[in-house]
Amino acid sequence: MALIVQKFGGTSVGSIERIEQVADKIKKFRESGDDLVVVLSAMSGETNRLLDLAKQITDTPVPRELDVIVSTGEQVTIALLAMALIKRGVPAVSYTGNQVRILTDSAHNKARILQIDDQKIRADLKAGRVVVVAGFQGVDEHGSITTLGRGGSDTTGVALAAALKADECQIYTDVDGVYTTDPRVVPQARRLEKITFEEMLEMASLGSKVLQIRSVEFAGKYNVPLRVLHSFKEGPGTLITIDEEESMEQPIISGIAFNRDEAKLTIRGVPDTPGVAFKILGPISASNIEVDMIVQNVAHDNTTDFTFTVHRNEYDAALKVLENTAREIGAREVIGDTKIAKVSIVGVGMRSHAGVASRMFEALAKESINIQMISTSEIKVSVVIEEKYLELAVRALHTAFELDAPARQGE
Amino acid sequence: MALIVQKFGGTSVGSIERIEQVADKIKKFRESGDDLVVVLSAMSGETNRLLDLAKQITDTPVPRELDVIVSTGEQVTIALLAMALIKRGVPAVSYTGNQVRILTDSAHNKARILQIDDQKIRADLKAGRVVVVAGFQGVDEHGSITTLGRGGSDTTGVALAAALKADECQIYTDVDGVYTTDPRVVPQARRLEKITFEEMLEMASLGSKVLQIRSVEFAGKYNVPLRVLHSFKEGPGTLITIDEEESMEQPIISGIAFNRDEAKLTIRGVPDTPGVAFKILGPISASNIEVDMIVQNVAHDNTTDFTFTVHRNEYDAALKVLENTAREIGAREVIGDTKIAKVSIVGVGMRSHAGVASRMFEALAKESINIQMISTSEIKVSVVIEEKYLELAVRALHTAFELDAPARQGE
Repeated sequence: MALIVQKFGGTSVGSIERIEQVADKIKKFRESGDDLVVVLSAMSGETNRLLDLAKQITDTPVPRELDVIVSTGEQVTIALLAMALIKRGVPAVSYTGNQVRILTDSAHNKARILQIDDQKIRADLKAGRVVVVAGFQGVDEHGSITTLGRGGSDTTGVALAAALKADECQIYTDVDGVYTTDPRVVPQARRLEKITFEEMLEMASLGSKVLQIRSVEFAGKYNVPLRVLHSFKEGPGTLITIDEEESMEQPIISGIAFNRDEAKLTIRGVPDTPGVAFKILGPISASNIEVDMIVQNVAHDNTTDFTFTVHRNEYDAALKVLENTAREIGAREVIGDTKIAKVSIVGVGMRSHAGVASRMFEALAKESINIQMISTSEIKVSVVIEEKYLELAVRALHTAFELDAPARQGE
Repeated sequence: MALIVQKFGGTSVGSIERIEQVADKIKKFRESGDDLVVVLSAMSGETNRLLDLAKQITDTPVPRELDVIVSTGEQVTIALLAMALIKRGVPAVSYTGNQVRILTDSAHNKARILQIDDQKIRADLKAGRVVVVAGFQGVDEHGSITTLGRGGSDTTGVALAAALKADECQIYTDVDGVYTTDPRVVPQARRLEKITFEEMLEMASLGSKVLQIRSVEFAGKYNVPLRVLHSFKEGPGTLITIDEEESMEQPIISGIAFNRDEAKLTIRGVPDTPGVAFKILGPISASNIEVDMIVQNVAHDNTTDFTFTVHRNEYDAALKVLENTAREIGAREVIGDTKIAKVSIVGVGMRSHAGVASRMFEALAKESINIQMISTSEIKVSVVIEEKYLELAVRALHTAFELDAPARQGE
């Protein structure tokens, strides 16, 4: 008999009908004999409705009070699901973050979990109950309600699984697993049976938005097997787990991630003196603009070029800051480009295989796609290319790294 | 410097604009130097919305889970008001029933308050904060959220005032006080400056729906001065307090209450044997039908007539039960009437004044109003009359007991 933590997101509990469907699903699981702890988000739209109420009072609500309001969203869904389960003859009980006691720090609106009291939950499981827990929320040492920030329900699921030493944490979403790349771009994209935490982190941060990054970090840290599944379709989903020996035998590359939300900024002819990178990026970060890729090449004629990418929404703001900086440090010019895309190959396999990057560059060259920037990590190679080539590049790489699904019989 | 508990109901916090108005009001109070604890209901309509969600899952929701859902209504308003106060520069903090720790029994949906922990609130008051508490809710010894049942926010206000030994508990409503009778029926009705707890109980239970009965009982028991005021109009309201000596000097009758929600049932020709009242009312009460007035006259020819009133909505059900009983006990017939009204005169003064009842009957006789039933208590005389005479009766009694407001100058 296994202990499973299951997390259902806002769209999975977005209406009474959906909640009834989730209850049916849980009843079936329960009949298979597993112990179940279910973590829920608020009904989709509810958190925004609550935030909007607060916004009507003030644009700068006190974080403590905002958490009191926002946390009511999950409080409603957990009780609705518990009712729906009991109606089906499945013993169930709901707990808010405070009732479980999910102890967090006092960083309201973005609190971090410090400790979870598993006593009540264990007693309920022992008594044969399904335990339904409000995601996204906890309580600080003063008894004030806290929230973990948007998407924090995934983190609640993983943290509960870690505290209870659950056999698996299942995250139910609107996709049936993690794919080698976006199936809308590459129809041959395949669902991965398995992926490592590290790969998942790279895939997620690069734009394959399936899981909240923090929950993956957490799962990796505490080695909680994480499974992504579809809320209302059958299927094994994708298991996210540690990098065991056997995964070395997997393909070199697990997937192709991409992102067209970025814009590129280059400051040219920067006098090559120590501290220049800080002089350039300091004012950007002081303006609360997040920087993704950074490339600085070796100096040439005592000046250097410095390029970085930011979110496309922050391009104008970044450009303004950078032009000021250019004047101050005596750089030659600032140029920018919003029509770029980032494509990355991700895989723990590349650690033990040379030549992965060159195989990537070769595949792009074959399609005459010019590479504007390159950055690499242990398990990832990212390139920036002209946006219009994005789909072509992803398809070419998907084929080059042998990720395409075999054509089905009859096709 | 006084300590005041103020309770605002659902319509007083029914919109963001209303909440802002309440915040303005509280800021003004605060500036006068009093310590304030504010108790809030859910925004009007919100509790029904939440109940409806639960009803969509099941018609028989588990009471524990229903409380989890319904209690979110107040949780939202307390934080919104705290935000609105802080925006105005008034330090404030919100607490749910659980956070205060309002300990109740485990009778979900209709819990009773057992104990209130005043530590946190006292510390906040000392620190100069306005404390905003969710009405209507508490927590049981197992940490489960409970609710006190509809209208329970008044009770929370009174219980907090008792626990904190507050100087006054102010209940803000949509009327500016307690009147000698309904001003829509008698334009000369006057607002009472003062009324005793006992009188208020009789007035409330007889249909002058200003305060929740339970909160008045509670206030009387713990001797908490209770004041009814209008949420958004200035004025002293009505003070509900103990029956002090001076109140003996007040008019004999404080007010005229009435009720047209009742129906009358009579079972005739009942064999006059011991236990007959139980034989008649036992089945009624077993059908969960509440009985108000009961009149049995002396027997005549070894049979007796037995009359009682029920809520008009339950007339048909009660009639059916009574007809069965009549067959079983061999009564002659059952008759009923839904076109009745009850009129009561209420006042502690009548204890020390003889002839109050006869003065009432005289006033009604003068208008040729026939009295169908009479019942009396220490501080109340009620009669049942034909419904069409209700307004006439109330006006006649209001004048007979000298309750009419003096005509204003120029009128």
